Amino acid sequence: MPYVTVKMLEGRSEEQKKSLVEKVTDAVSETTGAPKENVVVFIEEMSKNHYAVAGKRLSDQ
Amino acid sequence: MPYVTVKMLEGRSEEQKKSLVEKVTDAVSETTGAPKENVVVFIEEMSKNHYAVAGKRLSDQ
Amino acid sequence: MPYVTVKMLEGRSEEQKKSLVEKVTDAVSETTGAPKENVVVFIEEMSKNHYAVAGKRLSDQ
Amino acid sequence: MPYVTVKMLEGRSEEQKKSLVEKVTDAVSETTGAPKENVVVFIEEMSKNHYAVAGKRLSDQ
Amino acid sequence: MPYVTVKMLEGRSEEQKKSLVEKVTDAVSETTGAPKENVVVFIEEMSKNHYAVAGKRLSDQ
Amino acid sequence: MPYVTVKMLEGRSEEQKKSLVEKVTDAVSETTGAPKENVVVFIEEMSKNHYAVAGKRLSDQ
Repeated sequence: MPYVTVKMLEGRSEEQKKSLVEKVTDAVSETTGAPKENVVVFIEEMSKNHYAVAGKRLSDQ
Repeated sequence: MPYVTVKMLEGRSEEQKKSLVEKVTDAVSETTGAPKENVVVFIEEMSKNHYAVAGKRLSDQ
Repeated sequence: MPYVTVKMLEGRSEEQKKSLVEKVTDAVSETTGAPKENVVVFIEEMSKNHYAVAGKRLSDQ
Repeated sequence: MPYVTVKMLEGRSEEQKKSLVEKVTDAVSETTGAPKENVVVFIEEMSKNHYAVAGKRLSDQ
Repeated sequence: MPYVTVKMLEGRSEEQKKSLVEKVTDAVSETTGAPKENVVVFIEEMSKNHYAVAGKRLSDQ
Repeated sequence: MPYVTVKMLEGRSEEQKKSLVEKVTDAVSETTGAPKENVVVFIEEMSKNHYAVAGKRLSDQ
């Protein structure tokens, strides 16, 4: 705890994801005071046909 | 905002999903007063072996 | 099933929420083919100090 | 209702998942008083590159 | 890990919730093989005006 | 997009939450390449009687 979920479009590289969880963990630990060992990060990826803004999917634009 | 997540079994066609996000966005915008541009819809699909009612998965019925 | 979650800022009236779940259920049923009896809707409300865009909470703007 | 989501690393067998939803449904029904017919269980699987503790993904250890 | 979320109507007693997390943790540990120390349970409560089946909220029935 | 949810125990100050969303937004933007304007952060707070590890709630320890 804290538990962080990052939901984003698929397509980021493994290097980007590796860096993402490091930096987010640092940010959460510094600002909440929770030790880094307690910070958990989940990545959830969406595809473009499962994400819509203003009623239009990204895959339909 | 609002953010809408629709969780359903996999298997709907792209046409159904396209229509789903359109109609849901309209419904949310009309009833909440939020402009359509602010309404976000996520679709999440489940497989039959990851969904259970009364202790029985759909894939086991 | 389907299960729909609508996440939005607190402050809508009971009439708006009542209408929201009706219209969203209709939209989901029509476009997915699921009978209305199977459609479930959850409303989740956020406060302005728990929601941020571009690093700034609504309560700080 | 209740709705139970079990989020875990991918890799469990179908037998394990089948048993998991049975036993969890029993546990929820017994302790909350909800009839088993009303208990819904979702399984969500994560891959090792989408789960991090202490800023390090399981796939990087 | 695993992470379990139990979403249910508000109103259960503290004794019921205490028993719920114990029994669910046992069920998850036994069936997945994860040590009990790794099982995390979150309880999320809904009010009757934020939960609808078939387009009707529980508070409107 | 990306959408970030930070789930943690209640009790952090407004200053901590303000700083949390700023730093997390920076971390996500830098590592994913998404413009800060597109990063959304939600904070979700748990109470000690709704969070359990190893079958024991924090409020029971």
